[in-house]
Amino acid sequence: MTSIAAPPPDGSLSERHIRILDAAESVFARAGFHAATMHDVAVEAGMSPGNLYRYFASKDAIIAGMAERDRAQIAADFTQLDPAGAVLDQLEDLGRRHMIQKPREKAIIALQIWAEAARNPAMASMCADIDETVIGGLVAAISGAKASGELPANLDDARFLQAIFMMADGFFCRRAVDPQFDAAAGADTLFAAMRGLAQVLLLPEPDEARP
Amino acid sequence: MTSIAAPPPDGSLSERHIRILDAAESVFARAGFHAATMHDVAVEAGMSPGNLYRYFASKDAIIAGMAERDRAQIAADFTQLDPAGAVLDQLEDLGRRHMIQKPREKAIIALQIWAEAARNPAMASMCADIDETVIGGLVAAISGAKASGELPANLDDARFLQAIFMMADGFFCRRAVDPQFDAAAGADTLFAAMRGLAQVLLLPEPDEARP
Repeated sequence: MTSIAAPPPDGSLSERHIRILDAAESVFARAGFHAATMHDVAVEAGMSPGNLYRYFASKDAIIAGMAERDRAQIAADFTQLDPAGAVLDQLEDLGRRHMIQKPREKAIIALQIWAEAARNPAMASMCADIDETVIGGLVAAISGAKASGELPANLDDARFLQAIFMMADGFFCRRAVDPQFDAAAGADTLFAAMRGLAQVLLLPEPDEARP
Repeated sequence: MTSIAAPPPDGSLSERHIRILDAAESVFARAGFHAATMHDVAVEAGMSPGNLYRYFASKDAIIAGMAERDRAQIAADFTQLDPAGAVLDQLEDLGRRHMIQKPREKAIIALQIWAEAARNPAMASMCADIDETVIGGLVAAISGAKASGELPANLDDARFLQAIFMMADGFFCRRAVDPQFDAAAGADTLFAAMRGLAQVLLLPEPDEARP
């Protein structure tokens, strides 16, 4: 990030940084990342363009700030998981918070960031950082649930994770593209599928006699 | 579509229309839909800009042409399904053709179109047309497979379709965003999950005694 007025040293965001990121999310979702200008963001945030530039030097810096805010939020969510509790229930709660309770704008922004990332290595690297945070959290949670017996010991973790990831990305695509998309029903499908897949995406048993 | 040199009356595309759409896919994937110009497309297609405008009046018209070409291809694929054959095997073959054999460019273009569609009703309507074609084909195939006994009679079609759709959209996101994405392994996961979900995403039995 190239902000000049640095965020507080503890890694949290200042009230001003938060206000700018919120304003930019509204503007980018409405006008599109490409068409939106720093001036639009400043107006939405209720500050002068000159002041805005003290916090973020460019639209790219704002996008990086948004991505880092999301990544930090997800990381914090995963630290709240109770290893002694039912993992699938907790993942569903966490997932629903990100998928339903947040406004559709978030999905539109995510789609724009992905479309940029497909051609822009810096954005692709930000996306990879977020994925790493999510995957790290999921791998730890799933391995705990296998140890406790909540999930089958022979669950094919890699495929299970990849299937959930693809469904979650697809959920955000659908939510962004279709204003009529029923996010609650989509999440119901996703989590029913997650629970089903936890029982059937199994590794082949090496000692299983095959006909 | 606002092309001036109309495609052949049988609905097929002329060699020139095909050449332009292929060129535009390369240019849009490389430069991005927003940054790309009609001039870039003309250069890539090996024709003068003036000639290009005889076929497509704008970038939006080219995008509409791409979307309609994809939709027609998908519709044709579904008419090839053999109702007497194993449906899941045939859907997997069809899916793999679209997911793996086509270049990554196609996924990058799809993501750009979705990102546009999130804010542009005309593009959203093109996406909805493609979805309708896919859903129509899938609903017919699944209902045949339920009748033949290949799929459980109490399969929750709506959730099954939505879960597959989300995974497929997520597959294209991942393929577009991550140049290292292993498309074959991703497709293996998707189709293993599809086969698993066909067994577990069931409607509640109305006469099932619940404890």
